[in-house]
Amino acid sequence: MASRVKAALIGGTGYGGAEILRRLLFHPRVEVVRVTAADNIGKRVGEVHFNLAGLTDLRFEELPPKEAAAGVDVVFLAMPHKVTAKVAMELFDLPVRIVDLSGDFRLRSAAEYREFYGVDHPAPERLGTFAYGLPELNREAIRTARYIASPGCFATTIALGLAPLAKTGLLKGPIRTVAATGSSGSGANPQITTHHPLRAVNLRTYKPLSHQHQPEILQTLHDAGGGEVALEFVPVSAPLPRGIFASSFVDVPESVTEERLAKAWRDAYANEPFIRVVEGRFPEVVAVAGGNYVEVAYKLSEAFDGRRSVVCFSALDNLVKGGAGQAIQAFNVMMGFDEGETLREPGLWP
Amino acid sequence: MASRVKAALIGGTGYGGAEILRRLLFHPRVEVVRVTAADNIGKRVGEVHFNLAGLTDLRFEELPPKEAAAGVDVVFLAMPHKVTAKVAMELFDLPVRIVDLSGDFRLRSAAEYREFYGVDHPAPERLGTFAYGLPELNREAIRTARYIASPGCFATTIALGLAPLAKTGLLKGPIRTVAATGSSGSGANPQITTHHPLRAVNLRTYKPLSHQHQPEILQTLHDAGGGEVALEFVPVSAPLPRGIFASSFVDVPESVTEERLAKAWRDAYANEPFIRVVEGRFPEVVAVAGGNYVEVAYKLSEAFDGRRSVVCFSALDNLVKGGAGQAIQAFNVMMGFDEGETLREPGLWP
Amino acid sequence: MASRVKAALIGGTGYGGAEILRRLLFHPRVEVVRVTAADNIGKRVGEVHFNLAGLTDLRFEELPPKEAAAGVDVVFLAMPHKVTAKVAMELFDLPVRIVDLSGDFRLRSAAEYREFYGVDHPAPERLGTFAYGLPELNREAIRTARYIASPGCFATTIALGLAPLAKTGLLKGPIRTVAATGSSGSGANPQITTHHPLRAVNLRTYKPLSHQHQPEILQTLHDAGGGEVALEFVPVSAPLPRGIFASSFVDVPESVTEERLAKAWRDAYANEPFIRVVEGRFPEVVAVAGGNYVEVAYKLSEAFDGRRSVVCFSALDNLVKGGAGQAIQAFNVMMGFDEGETLREPGLWP
Amino acid sequence: MASRVKAALIGGTGYGGAEILRRLLFHPRVEVVRVTAADNIGKRVGEVHFNLAGLTDLRFEELPPKEAAAGVDVVFLAMPHKVTAKVAMELFDLPVRIVDLSGDFRLRSAAEYREFYGVDHPAPERLGTFAYGLPELNREAIRTARYIASPGCFATTIALGLAPLAKTGLLKGPIRTVAATGSSGSGANPQITTHHPLRAVNLRTYKPLSHQHQPEILQTLHDAGGGEVALEFVPVSAPLPRGIFASSFVDVPESVTEERLAKAWRDAYANEPFIRVVEGRFPEVVAVAGGNYVEVAYKLSEAFDGRRSVVCFSALDNLVKGGAGQAIQAFNVMMGFDEGETLREPGLWP
Repeated sequence: MASRVKAALIGGTGYGGAEILRRLLFHPRVEVVRVTAADNIGKRVGEVHFNLAGLTDLRFEELPPKEAAAGVDVVFLAMPHKVTAKVAMELFDLPVRIVDLSGDFRLRSAAEYREFYGVDHPAPERLGTFAYGLPELNREAIRTARYIASPGCFATTIALGLAPLAKTGLLKGPIRTVAATGSSGSGANPQITTHHPLRAVNLRTYKPLSHQHQPEILQTLHDAGGGEVALEFVPVSAPLPRGIFASSFVDVPESVTEERLAKAWRDAYANEPFIRVVEGRFPEVVAVAGGNYVEVAYKLSEAFDGRRSVVCFSALDNLVKGGAGQAIQAFNVMMGFDEGETLREPGLWP
Repeated sequence: MASRVKAALIGGTGYGGAEILRRLLFHPRVEVVRVTAADNIGKRVGEVHFNLAGLTDLRFEELPPKEAAAGVDVVFLAMPHKVTAKVAMELFDLPVRIVDLSGDFRLRSAAEYREFYGVDHPAPERLGTFAYGLPELNREAIRTARYIASPGCFATTIALGLAPLAKTGLLKGPIRTVAATGSSGSGANPQITTHHPLRAVNLRTYKPLSHQHQPEILQTLHDAGGGEVALEFVPVSAPLPRGIFASSFVDVPESVTEERLAKAWRDAYANEPFIRVVEGRFPEVVAVAGGNYVEVAYKLSEAFDGRRSVVCFSALDNLVKGGAGQAIQAFNVMMGFDEGETLREPGLWP
Repeated sequence: MASRVKAALIGGTGYGGAEILRRLLFHPRVEVVRVTAADNIGKRVGEVHFNLAGLTDLRFEELPPKEAAAGVDVVFLAMPHKVTAKVAMELFDLPVRIVDLSGDFRLRSAAEYREFYGVDHPAPERLGTFAYGLPELNREAIRTARYIASPGCFATTIALGLAPLAKTGLLKGPIRTVAATGSSGSGANPQITTHHPLRAVNLRTYKPLSHQHQPEILQTLHDAGGGEVALEFVPVSAPLPRGIFASSFVDVPESVTEERLAKAWRDAYANEPFIRVVEGRFPEVVAVAGGNYVEVAYKLSEAFDGRRSVVCFSALDNLVKGGAGQAIQAFNVMMGFDEGETLREPGLWP
Repeated sequence: MASRVKAALIGGTGYGGAEILRRLLFHPRVEVVRVTAADNIGKRVGEVHFNLAGLTDLRFEELPPKEAAAGVDVVFLAMPHKVTAKVAMELFDLPVRIVDLSGDFRLRSAAEYREFYGVDHPAPERLGTFAYGLPELNREAIRTARYIASPGCFATTIALGLAPLAKTGLLKGPIRTVAATGSSGSGANPQITTHHPLRAVNLRTYKPLSHQHQPEILQTLHDAGGGEVALEFVPVSAPLPRGIFASSFVDVPESVTEERLAKAWRDAYANEPFIRVVEGRFPEVVAVAGGNYVEVAYKLSEAFDGRRSVVCFSALDNLVKGGAGQAIQAFNVMMGFDEGETLREPGLWP
């Protein structure tokens, strides 16, 4: 057997950390040597993430970042934004790779970070030094990276839904997106917005037109070939634990045809192991929940007033392809491992 | 006590019929004398709609329409579209009022009916002779009507969300709407799209850009003052039993201000007993499920390229304000009763 | 119109308080003059319980108990146990009736209170002075009471399921009960046990064999005619917002027949407006959620070893008949009002 | 790489078939060469089970059993009971192993089969010739078997919950069990009992005291060392897609101690790779859903009247350890493969 790379997980008690462990503990090229956290210190991993009970002897430790990263090849950061940047700053002078699940190193613009995250970035000079970890759009950069900023769940869903338009130069003007998400996206700490009596029978929006993934999506689409665009994004809380379903409206010229769109989607994702261009139906969360796969499709509207819309649909699991799964996918690319290692198994049905 | 009007319900075994009965059985001005159906013949109402067990001795009868309507003042039709038109045709020469919950008499255009319902209308000369039963936009016509076409659930949600723009002349150009709905909207008959193992953990679209409520919404908005508009509507199936949440994007000139919008919403719904213009938060399904109330709000986007969007939000219970409740509200208006009779009690919390 | 009694609600921001208000605001014999709380002070009722937005101008006030009760005829207490007893003690020398939704005055035994609630009761001399507010088993005492201790949600469900056996002398020996409950029973404050990502796909027990409703149930069944019994009660958390479904196994002699049981259930609930003895099917939560009705039924087992079991089934809405609805039902009895006032409307379907 | 055994799946369009495929397609020692079905003929597997889209080129074929089994080493039968027995009869003279997920070959008694399945067994002489596929209780028989009858979902949950008592001679007298199940146990065909609007907000029992798993459980417990026992089993439908949670009450002598029980559970499952004896909390569905693991625990009651109860708790995923996962586990044992092959990965969290 090939030798294993040693990994540490910093911030292991959230749902991102849980999913990282669920995958890495079975990764044939990785040994998880340490898991730190800010709570549940001393408990076994399986005492917090019950699904892992009996599968590992690791316990949550409270350690300064440098000690957490001592002797490992790679550190996975699974903490909230704002907290993460400060932890990462402790690691930059260590010979350690970083895969960060937070939003702290995704944006290149310190001004946008301030606007959408509400604070000044503590290490603005580091912005732009992490490879954006969306393999379908940024695989080459990831391959040679040492630091990866793993994309946000909404950002992944929406960007992958729209990328075929961006790549073919059809993405211009305002984009209008509504994306509904499961409750696990809000994290492991109970809040009123994830209180079961209300959440289980509710649909509501939050942060409409001001969600912090907006600039991330625009940056990604711009890099993919998008023109001058604006994004109006309405996030919706839906009553299921896992999954995001996004619908994005884009103006296109009246001359755009079904054939051109079909080719755009086919070409964009021809050899992508985790993208399914769905035909004969539309993307569904139940088809992808629990696994690392994404479903995408589009629908062309009737012409009206010289223009028409393409509606781009996409669905994925926010904790897997929208979170920990994608982080491991990018990690696999960075390490030169098989990109699908520990990620190929599909989700549940039903 | 004032004398009671006699009512018959044709098509009583669906969810629309159930909700009609739940309300009418407690209506102080109404006596329900008969309930017909195509299935469950001979069973007591409470053997099919368990919530009504013990509350009425009515049984489901199988009767030709004329016999069903014999001797009553008003007939409520709670059947699928296509079936309904044929039943209604049997009733037109009787001295009986009609409140129809189906889509068969909502559109004025036979061509649109054919396009969206897939068949020729059997009585095209009757199109346009039913008052569209949306009191907030059509109260005067309802007051003098004998026949009411009660609006569709999506149509009610979306039209009430957009009406303040229509009334103030701001509704022009393409409208992009995503509306997520609970499963009760699919009716009482089990289908794969309402199969619990799949529905409970799913989000998906169906009939995107081709739902039969599109022309109904456009007709309503046009009547309310809307200009040349097109509607691109994406319905989404969500995993909850009741409720619709809609988000509609509309282009407006850069000059449109918050103040102007605030006044538009305030003016549109100033004296409406069932509309809440929500401030400080956004509409939520949990706030309205089980009751006849609607929540509406809007959000103005940043300007981009000389234009900006208003996103109109609305939420209601598809079976109450989006169905039976609204039918009774319009019935109350038509009869000169207190408009809120049997409808004032709010829904559950939570 | 008859004059209205004045009511105050102490502890109005929880789900019990919300349901009390949803009913009392429409009670023709009651005027709610004041609502106090420990949080959300100054907010309108509809800013906390969104379903009540626009329906009342009441705001949550922070007031000492005596001021809260000043000038009213009746006080509803909707606070947690332990807190409630101390508030009630401030009210005993006022000329005010009390309807208490907490567990603080249900038990007659200070020792049992200490064992199951974990603290000494602060006013043990008051134990036994409140009428237990279960009209079906205690109507006469309620009629002449000034103070009512409204039963617990599990206690109501289980006691009403077993009462026909108790009344006919068939309830002896150990009772084994499993009752599954919706999440609203855990209250309005987010907790890990009501965190949607976990709760929505979970079934688990909590406090098995040690739930604080055990002694309450035993006391109630004893009063209803039960013999020497013990209760082994397993509460189960289920993933729905409202409703309790209980199954209770009781040993009976081999000689007990279907006929005898049928008569026991029929006789026990012959004239009860809110109890449905279900035949041809079994109790279901969906049949009662949202309303004040209870469904009960039983099943007799095969004989084994000289004995057999009766399994008693019961279902209700924990916030209505298991909480605020029942409190108002008992209040109606105490005041000499129509017992079903504001409670007759059934719950939703579906 | 070791050569692979060839497998055919008969009855591949249900949820059992879906889960078999999800696992076997990634089994390093198995090649799935054929999938037959009674519906969806000609469709790709991924067109029916969307999670498998793109992962296999297999299509559902309509073939007589003998042709379905031609040239393979093992046939998995994933069909309803009654249908299965007739298919199996076609296979007995082929040199092929069988793993049957139905109930048709679990019972040894033709009389019990007739009583609980409602028909005469078509091949009663074959009853008892299949090894009961519960590795934890029957591993040695499975090792040398050619035919495996994979246990029912309720039967697995309840038998594994009670086995420690049976093995230590403490299981006597009546057992009272309530077990709540997710909706996927009802299969892939829509029914009124799995209609989302009703199921999502419901708890109800079905077939109380007469479920067809009762004799299967008794047979299993008897084989495990149980004495003269009777089982009174109340199945409950719960509103989640996957998972079973069971509570079983057993009378034990007053002399039974915590220590004795702790040892019984420890000893029973000391080396079992898929059983977790839970301490410090109780079994939860969310801890096991999606994976092949089972959680078990117990609680000892106070003594009453010379006896006391042990309540045995158990939780598992009905489609994995209660279905397809367990079938593959037993298959692995029969073939001499690593018992946990393709089964070790835990379920989702959350």
